[in-house]
Amino acid sequence: MLLSVMIEQMAKEAKAASRQLRRIGRGQKDAALELMAKRLMDKKSDIIKENQKDLTSAKAAGLSVAMIDRLALDEKTITAMSEGLKEVAALPDPVGEVTGMWLRPNGLQVGRVRIPLGVIGFIYESRPNVTVDAASLCLKSGNSVILKGGSEAIHSNIALAALLSDALNETGLPPKAVQVIPSTDREAVNILIGLDEYLDVIIPRGGEGLIRFVTEHSRVPVLKHYKGVCHVYVDKSADLETAKKVCFNAKVQRAGVCNAMETMLVHQEIANVFLPEMIKVFQDAGVEIRGCPKTQALTDGVIPAQEADWPEEFLDLILAVRVVSDMDEALDHIERYGSNHTEAIITKDYDHAQRFLAEVDSSVVLVNASTRFNDGNQLGLGAEIGINTSKLHAFGPMGLNELTTTKFIVHGQGQLRS
Amino acid sequence: MLLSVMIEQMAKEAKAASRQLRRIGRGQKDAALELMAKRLMDKKSDIIKENQKDLTSAKAAGLSVAMIDRLALDEKTITAMSEGLKEVAALPDPVGEVTGMWLRPNGLQVGRVRIPLGVIGFIYESRPNVTVDAASLCLKSGNSVILKGGSEAIHSNIALAALLSDALNETGLPPKAVQVIPSTDREAVNILIGLDEYLDVIIPRGGEGLIRFVTEHSRVPVLKHYKGVCHVYVDKSADLETAKKVCFNAKVQRAGVCNAMETMLVHQEIANVFLPEMIKVFQDAGVEIRGCPKTQALTDGVIPAQEADWPEEFLDLILAVRVVSDMDEALDHIERYGSNHTEAIITKDYDHAQRFLAEVDSSVVLVNASTRFNDGNQLGLGAEIGINTSKLHAFGPMGLNELTTTKFIVHGQGQLRS
Repeated sequence: MLLSVMIEQMAKEAKAASRQLRRIGRGQKDAALELMAKRLMDKKSDIIKENQKDLTSAKAAGLSVAMIDRLALDEKTITAMSEGLKEVAALPDPVGEVTGMWLRPNGLQVGRVRIPLGVIGFIYESRPNVTVDAASLCLKSGNSVILKGGSEAIHSNIALAALLSDALNETGLPPKAVQVIPSTDREAVNILIGLDEYLDVIIPRGGEGLIRFVTEHSRVPVLKHYKGVCHVYVDKSADLETAKKVCFNAKVQRAGVCNAMETMLVHQEIANVFLPEMIKVFQDAGVEIRGCPKTQALTDGVIPAQEADWPEEFLDLILAVRVVSDMDEALDHIERYGSNHTEAIITKDYDHAQRFLAEVDSSVVLVNASTRFNDGNQLGLGAEIGINTSKLHAFGPMGLNELTTTKFIVHGQGQLRS
Repeated sequence: MLLSVMIEQMAKEAKAASRQLRRIGRGQKDAALELMAKRLMDKKSDIIKENQKDLTSAKAAGLSVAMIDRLALDEKTITAMSEGLKEVAALPDPVGEVTGMWLRPNGLQVGRVRIPLGVIGFIYESRPNVTVDAASLCLKSGNSVILKGGSEAIHSNIALAALLSDALNETGLPPKAVQVIPSTDREAVNILIGLDEYLDVIIPRGGEGLIRFVTEHSRVPVLKHYKGVCHVYVDKSADLETAKKVCFNAKVQRAGVCNAMETMLVHQEIANVFLPEMIKVFQDAGVEIRGCPKTQALTDGVIPAQEADWPEEFLDLILAVRVVSDMDEALDHIERYGSNHTEAIITKDYDHAQRFLAEVDSSVVLVNASTRFNDGNQLGLGAEIGINTSKLHAFGPMGLNELTTTKFIVHGQGQLRS
């Protein structure tokens, strides 16, 4: 079959399945998730066998050790996927929540109720466990999903999707609610993002090239994650012990992720006390420091920061450091070079804390806490399908609620418009 | 100056203005809106003079009487625009509302607070009063706006924008928060929708061709309104007097709008009692009826409905009528031919009412009330910038809240991620 015909057929079936899903209550969805969790454990060896095919191809194609590591499934990772399914089953169902209801002067009772988005296209390049994570969150929120994973994981993904569909079928849910595109052709992405008649949203997760391509060409609305150039501003009134711990955690606890600190801004009045010690701690942990001239003057072993370092998402043990003359300069720096992702202030000054919270235009703004808390689980959303860096629909981490929308319901007694 | 250079410059200035707007409280925004209202009344004759230029060109270009009528500004329409500004000033400010706040087990206090979207691109083909309406709603919600109106209204729009900017300036707000693109070149749309570095959302309002073009080519997220193929389903348990009044209101009160009924679905058990009288009432009001075979058999003067009539948005005194054997058939019809805009059921049956509200996947679903209530003002949103027919961000009518998003704010005491 032609790829385009096949994918359109999948989209049609996904839409039909989404209509059925709208009517299905929490109990049945949770039963399907629980059965998926069980089946994953039962069929571990089958999944690992399919995963071996991917690993063999990956090695033959000369993929890096890191990539092969991300691709590999074993008893432990499959158990973690199974546990993840049970955790999603335990979360509250967002569908059906009435988020507000009010009475109009003419007697109309107007409410807003949460409903699924419909059909989600999920495009990703990462580990096969994302297949199960994404499918479980889409299902729990009442959405159908079409998954387009990386070509290197094709056998794993097809096997996982078959297992998930079987569990749907056995629990009386539409098996086409979860589908993996069984093709490694990159053209599949192009076809999928054109199907605005059937899809309600595209969520791409992967490198900047993929995100850019999808954003430029999609006819379906896109919820996307660009980069996280996250800042911590150490105010002159900061508790310096807190500053040291939070900055270290924000940079070093996991350097390769979007919510890690990339630039530290330090008020000039505390720089001579704070910076020498802080930078030494970083350097002892293997962090390369790229500093402004004032930073260089106060500390040793600092590489001069270039203009290109300020907007850079290093995703590595590299930190840009800048001494600022006041909070305005810090806010200006963030406005100019930041990516509206996550910024934190370390301060004991109430007014500065309030001003930072009010003026910084980022999806998560923190006072005296690590930037690493920009995460759906950490912030209490229960789960996370990703972080949205554009402002529409859901700015920041997206949990189950963010995979829904609301419609208006109106109870009348024959009201007419005049 | 090159058009692309000019529009990019406008976008940059709009973004800078939006940063200032974020910090400005309700009092100052309302003062600007009030001053705009006053200036409109003071400068009526100047505005009308500029509008005359547009009318002269329109007549020379042979535009239809209806189009010229939509374009014309007079004392009455300008007074209405001025009153509209005062009404927006009287609405609550959505910015700063904390929509929720909770405590995490680690002591982090996490909240969500409403913030402006940032910079809005508003593309429209309609009357010059939309310039003032859209600008006032964007300003009240803390957003900058770049307006691209129809070329036939260019002199009116430039004059109105200058008046609005002057009022912003006089009240200490950034004058670039409201800008009209001073060009009739259609290429301006193409340039604007490519500026994803500066714009946060594009709202197009106009014909299907414009909407389709913007959706296909925009790099900026789009909130769009497609068509409204709205249905009323008259259930077998309906109060027939209520049904008659609501159906008549839904079709005839204003036929040329998106929330008017286009198809009436009637349960077969009441069709022989309800339809002959209802159809006569419609025909007496000049409504052309396109009916299914059963409708034709029960009534006179009915044109046989073609398959193409069911998904059609007539926007005119034309109504498609179909007799259905039960509620399932009505729901299937709506699912197949509807546009997820507005549907109503007329019923006295509690279970049917509940099922209709739950299963119909439209932005507004009503029981015993006219479809014409799908409107931000009517539903109690206070004002309306448009109706969104895609599910992302805000499904249905959009008021001031829907021109905002939320960010997360976090109060910590030195918490680290482990």
